[in-house]
Amino acid sequence: MKTYLDCIPCFFDQALRAGRAATDDRQLQKRVLDELGAMLSDISLDSTPPETGRLIYRMIREITGNADPFRKLKRDCTQQALALYPSLKRTIEDSNDKLLTAIRIAIAGNVIDFGVNSSFDIEATLKEVLKKDFAIFDYSAFRRYLKASEHVLYIGDNAGETVFDRILIEQMNKPVTFVVRETPVINDATAEDAVQAGIDKVATIVSSGTDAPGTILNTCSREFRQMLAGSEFVIAKGQGNYEGLSNENHAVFFLLMAKCRLIAQDLGVKKGDIILKGMGVGS
Amino acid sequence: MKTYLDCIPCFFDQALRAGRAATDDRQLQKRVLDELGAMLSDISLDSTPPETGRLIYRMIREITGNADPFRKLKRDCTQQALALYPSLKRTIEDSNDKLLTAIRIAIAGNVIDFGVNSSFDIEATLKEVLKKDFAIFDYSAFRRYLKASEHVLYIGDNAGETVFDRILIEQMNKPVTFVVRETPVINDATAEDAVQAGIDKVATIVSSGTDAPGTILNTCSREFRQMLAGSEFVIAKGQGNYEGLSNENHAVFFLLMAKCRLIAQDLGVKKGDIILKGMGVGS
Repeated sequence: MKTYLDCIPCFFDQALRAGRAATDDRQLQKRVLDELGAMLSDISLDSTPPETGRLIYRMIREITGNADPFRKLKRDCTQQALALYPSLKRTIEDSNDKLLTAIRIAIAGNVIDFGVNSSFDIEATLKEVLKKDFAIFDYSAFRRYLKASEHVLYIGDNAGETVFDRILIEQMNKPVTFVVRETPVINDATAEDAVQAGIDKVATIVSSGTDAPGTILNTCSREFRQMLAGSEFVIAKGQGNYEGLSNENHAVFFLLMAKCRLIAQDLGVKKGDIILKGMGVGS
Repeated sequence: MKTYLDCIPCFFDQALRAGRAATDDRQLQKRVLDELGAMLSDISLDSTPPETGRLIYRMIREITGNADPFRKLKRDCTQQALALYPSLKRTIEDSNDKLLTAIRIAIAGNVIDFGVNSSFDIEATLKEVLKKDFAIFDYSAFRRYLKASEHVLYIGDNAGETVFDRILIEQMNKPVTFVVRETPVINDATAEDAVQAGIDKVATIVSSGTDAPGTILNTCSREFRQMLAGSEFVIAKGQGNYEGLSNENHAVFFLLMAKCRLIAQDLGVKKGDIILKGMGVGS
């Protein structure tokens, strides 16, 4: 997905939020915005938003000296999610279609963003997503791929959400490689965050090599690109991975909640909709 | 009121909206945002938002060559408001406190912003504001000033809203000088817009001399500053005038709807609240 002009005010919103998380110094927070302003004319509308996000968060790290502004928030989200884990496992046991319920839970986890502060919101979202209709629902293709594949490449998104990914991984009952970002960026999951969620007990954790908040292939390691090229069944969680991979030529199942109006528009759905979209997977 | 860091993403939102109103050329719209980015480090948090708005709209005029991007929208808003004029006059006739009803109508008019597209919204707001409790209500001081003063200086805000101002002016039954912006900026009322609303029939129209979207005294003409200094009873409509005048040392009655979270915070009220605030007027 390319950058829309409307993404630009949003970049400033995000930079301000991250700047505030990184430092209490108001002058430095202002400098973060000034610096983003100075970068603007170099930001092409042909790049994807996570490519720009990568440059913004690099700049914030440099200016504030804080390499991981959302560290505490990420840990808190994971703890909150882990506290819900036992009851979510029971929800799956009690459901008619266990795989679909696990997919719904993994999508609900996508709401765990650094804007979410209490377990209350997570629980409300879970309740909603467990019942909500999908706006795009390529479930039969998903089941077909799962059945036919020896292995799953699962590209994670945010810390905390990883606990819900673990539930889907456990339900799929196949060998899974779970992909994380190489370095902290926003609240995206790194290897450390994935281990905290217990992903290491159910999957092999690998880094994509990127420091972008999404999977931008030319910022990923050669090893990851080869792994992706050789993977039959790929699941990618969340908006950042959609933005990065939706223009690529590889079959991918996107699991996400359309939290942004423009991504919703790009997908042809409404903001708030839940999506299970198989791209390039046949019908 | 000073500029908050949160105003900065909002400046980009506004610049994009105005850029789109000014031109269909997407490259020029992007250039507007790039140019604002380049200006950022020169924008002091000690300036008021309308001071910055003034620089932004100057830049948009220069880049797009469009001196009045909201011209058609302003005319449409005034026409919509004029269509409501007869029924609003009847509403006043039917009310117990005609002055207060006219104040409420003038405040409801403050919702006519370039974001409002249909008469439906205006009518819904009118219905709401005619019943809503005031968050700040210095009505007895307002009546005292009105009774004691020979003349009213009424500083207008947006085009279209001017029709609702006219209703309050008619109800006050005193000689009124109605102040407009010197040049078009956003959808703020100029002399031409005020005449279209029929203000010339009930008041003397003067320009403050400014091209800012608010009353920033050091951008106003010497004549206007002298007029303000000599005025006992001053009414200022809307957020832009509040932002510009709230730090000045002159008694002013502010009539507005707190449409922005930060202005609401500055006033100690909630977003959406309606305000009749006498600043420096005694209790």
